Amino acid sequence: MNGAQSLVATLRASGIDTCLANPGTSEMHFVAALDQSAGLRCVLGLQENVVTGMADGYWRIAGRPAATLLHCGPGLANGLANLHNARRAHSGIVNIVGDQATWHRPHDPPLTADTEGLARTVSGWVKTSMTAADVGRDAAAAVQAARSAGGQIATLILPSDASWDDGGVVAQPLAPSPGLPPDALAIDTAAKALRSGAPTLLLLAGQAVRAHGQQLAWRIAHATGAHLTADYLAPCVERGRGRLQLERVPYSTDLAIERLARFRHIVLVGAKAPVGFFAYPGKPSTQFPADAQLHVLARPDQDAIAALRALAEALHAPEAAMPDPGPRPQAASGAPTPEKLAQTVAALMPDDAIVSDESVSYGRGFYQHTHAAPPHDWLHLVGGAIGAGLPVATGAAIAAGGRRRVISLQADGSAMYTLQSLWTQAREGLPCTTVLLNNRKYAILQGEYRGVGATPGPTALRMLDLGSPDLDWVRLAEGMGVEAARATTMEQCADLMSRSFGRTGPFLIDLAV
Amino acid sequence: MNGAQSLVATLRASGIDTCLANPGTSEMHFVAALDQSAGLRCVLGLQENVVTGMADGYWRIAGRPAATLLHCGPGLANGLANLHNARRAHSGIVNIVGDQATWHRPHDPPLTADTEGLARTVSGWVKTSMTAADVGRDAAAAVQAARSAGGQIATLILPSDASWDDGGVVAQPLAPSPGLPPDALAIDTAAKALRSGAPTLLLLAGQAVRAHGQQLAWRIAHATGAHLTADYLAPCVERGRGRLQLERVPYSTDLAIERLARFRHIVLVGAKAPVGFFAYPGKPSTQFPADAQLHVLARPDQDAIAALRALAEALHAPEAAMPDPGPRPQAASGAPTPEKLAQTVAALMPDDAIVSDESVSYGRGFYQHTHAAPPHDWLHLVGGAIGAGLPVATGAAIAAGGRRRVISLQADGSAMYTLQSLWTQAREGLPCTTVLLNNRKYAILQGEYRGVGATPGPTALRMLDLGSPDLDWVRLAEGMGVEAARATTMEQCADLMSRSFGRTGPFLIDLAV
Repeated sequence: MNGAQSLVATLRASGIDTCLANPGTSEMHFVAALDQSAGLRCVLGLQENVVTGMADGYWRIAGRPAATLLHCGPGLANGLANLHNARRAHSGIVNIVGDQATWHRPHDPPLTADTEGLARTVSGWVKTSMTAADVGRDAAAAVQAARSAGGQIATLILPSDASWDDGGVVAQPLAPSPGLPPDALAIDTAAKALRSGAPTLLLLAGQAVRAHGQQLAWRIAHATGAHLTADYLAPCVERGRGRLQLERVPYSTDLAIERLARFRHIVLVGAKAPVGFFAYPGKPSTQFPADAQLHVLARPDQDAIAALRALAEALHAPEAAMPDPGPRPQAASGAPTPEKLAQTVAALMPDDAIVSDESVSYGRGFYQHTHAAPPHDWLHLVGGAIGAGLPVATGAAIAAGGRRRVISLQADGSAMYTLQSLWTQAREGLPCTTVLLNNRKYAILQGEYRGVGATPGPTALRMLDLGSPDLDWVRLAEGMGVEAARATTMEQCADLMSRSFGRTGPFLIDLAV
Repeated sequence: MNGAQSLVATLRASGIDTCLANPGTSEMHFVAALDQSAGLRCVLGLQENVVTGMADGYWRIAGRPAATLLHCGPGLANGLANLHNARRAHSGIVNIVGDQATWHRPHDPPLTADTEGLARTVSGWVKTSMTAADVGRDAAAAVQAARSAGGQIATLILPSDASWDDGGVVAQPLAPSPGLPPDALAIDTAAKALRSGAPTLLLLAGQAVRAHGQQLAWRIAHATGAHLTADYLAPCVERGRGRLQLERVPYSTDLAIERLARFRHIVLVGAKAPVGFFAYPGKPSTQFPADAQLHVLARPDQDAIAALRALAEALHAPEAAMPDPGPRPQAASGAPTPEKLAQTVAALMPDDAIVSDESVSYGRGFYQHTHAAPPHDWLHLVGGAIGAGLPVATGAAIAAGGRRRVISLQADGSAMYTLQSLWTQAREGLPCTTVLLNNRKYAILQGEYRGVGATPGPTALRMLDLGSPDLDWVRLAEGMGVEAARATTMEQCADLMSRSFGRTGPFLIDLAV
């Protein structure tokens, strides 16, 4: 058994069932081993940031890591931006990076790069397997690391001789470290703040914005009058009927400061203290009042569910029925607006859908119009590196085994970074509906530019504008095998959306906004 | 004057006239400053690897650096693969990477990453400007570094407060370190080898494969009987009528070993000792005979022209007329083959064209059929990270000011990594003809897989295959505003090629191969 064969068998034994791949020469033995071991679904991405973004989406829906297969340092580099996003989302991923043979690397052939240095910028765990005998043991440790501490990036670098040499040994799975238990003192302190009567916010992220966490948080809020808000940076919010009508901390620093101004206590449940996405001249970094007290109930690596349960029990908070979101919205008509799009999505989405939201500035008001939709999961860009939306949607669809519709609400500028995702959606026949928000500009940057306090001149405008030439998303999608159509009214959009939900494969709606 | 304004003015004063940009929020003050200073042409790329690849192509044709404008660590990460290629090509580039404000970074907002760590993996020079007063001085040093040591990547990281704060100071240009002079001992040793009568190879790269270097090398070869070959990894070879009929060391390790077997002396002129692109089980890393003597006449950071001139003089080698390449080929007909494509390109290309060759395995025989073309520059992928061809072509066209036709000979799998380049070609109206070699597979990997000695099974084949669905390159190009047409015969290809050469803007030929 060679190293590559021991790797595939160990990944399977450790519960990895999906490999998202953009292989090169140094991975050929791994690719060969795939045909000798059943049970590992392989999905090809045509650019590495598609591959790593798919792995992020896979974790968020499956709750367990996928493997990626990448080629040398530059292949890893191409996937780093979505690994950055995945790290911020606490997604567990096992990267397998094929690299130069140990004895060839000293000759510095062209594709040689600082693969470990690149990996360290995003990974919680990095190892290079130097012999075939190490590979199985290292692979088991990589899966363990990916599943520990609430989800981490683990990167296993595989010199090609460690792949092809004999001496591979299949390793037994290693148990991941579960989320750390909550601190008793943190629970006492939070309970005291909640009993004080002073305005208190529970800021929720991670497991705390999944359905079970919301139920516990709602018990606490109902018993104490505390306010509940989701972190701006929640990777996956379970939403719709039967879940809380949570809002997120606004992106805008001014709005966030205004929204948080009244709180004297902020209890962080899997969330970090709210700070601005960016700094602005003359504005503070932090968005909470200077005299508010911050209490960490659970860090992202701690068990937020256990912490919320302990807090609810400390407060003797009784069970409480989730508040009703009111009637389901109707599909809208007329010229597209963010509100109408959100209403229409809420009106038409099938049960148990997944929304991948990279609408950037366009979608900041989507939440308020979708609370009364059927139950669904809403995935956000949490690391800020645009180009995650389409890959995350693709990976989410793979994780759901084709059984849940995935709806991408996708800005045009961001979509261009990883448009190759559409090809993988077509090849795998994934149930993905992309609503491409085609405004022909980097709208967020035009907003940020105004934040600078200047009127953009011709050069600046040209840097913020995606027109001339206009991107034709129908042709781009069709060029990658995805059926597509253009909509300029909400009626057309609703019609296309409904029809797409009845299909098994992908569809793209180029929505003029 | 703020830091951003001092940066733009210093770049201009230091001779930078082109900024290739994919900006974000933290770069808005730089973008604003662009409208306040004339003479810096800004070109937008829709993904960062397009931007950095354009900068590589710009250097190879202009011989001076362009600036790039990138957004935070993840934006730099997206451009690292083509910076890797540029580093291997010894291309000088000045990266400006906007980043978190100095006082905001400690709060670890979402887009915060190890920007310096990422930069160091590819850069010869890295600096973060911590105050507005530093920016001008640091920018001048960055340009100096980019132009030194034969061309380097210089990365200047610009926290947003260093951009927007007052106190910017325009800096005077700093003189770059010229290529180091050749070593007298190296010239003596090489001369001795060449006089020995034993079979001797001059292996040429860098300036040695430009026209002037070739003339000097030919004098030496003509006088001594030495053989001349270009490194496989030459960034830009000046070719066609009036230049040498150089061949490159073959990609295949077996062929390279066979080709180099007869030499007892190998004189390296800007080239490194030939080693395999990858290792293979049971094959050596090095491609030269174990008993050959290697002589370094000029390292890549040394002045290869001065070294060749000194060697020619030491050998008293007289001027020699360049050998005639024979008659210009005719355009071919029938089903496309690599040979026919090369002949047709040679038959039809306008004078002074630029060829950007990312044909990968398809184009290994292109050279022998294009020696008798008009004078042209041939650009290669030298770092091995595919996805360079289209960006390099785009940057080369920008560097040539629209006055030279750029012909991309472009494999389909590689093109998909950076297809967004086509949009920039359309927006800027660049004279780029792309011949898209559409074989619907990763042909090189199918070859490499056979090198493993196995027959690919269904999973492996699926990882090496780009069909199902087929990529429709006509639609992809049109979706980005580039006119395109499909060719299935050489007659159609020749017709489309000729017509495209008469245009001012870009065109794509989807050639079924």
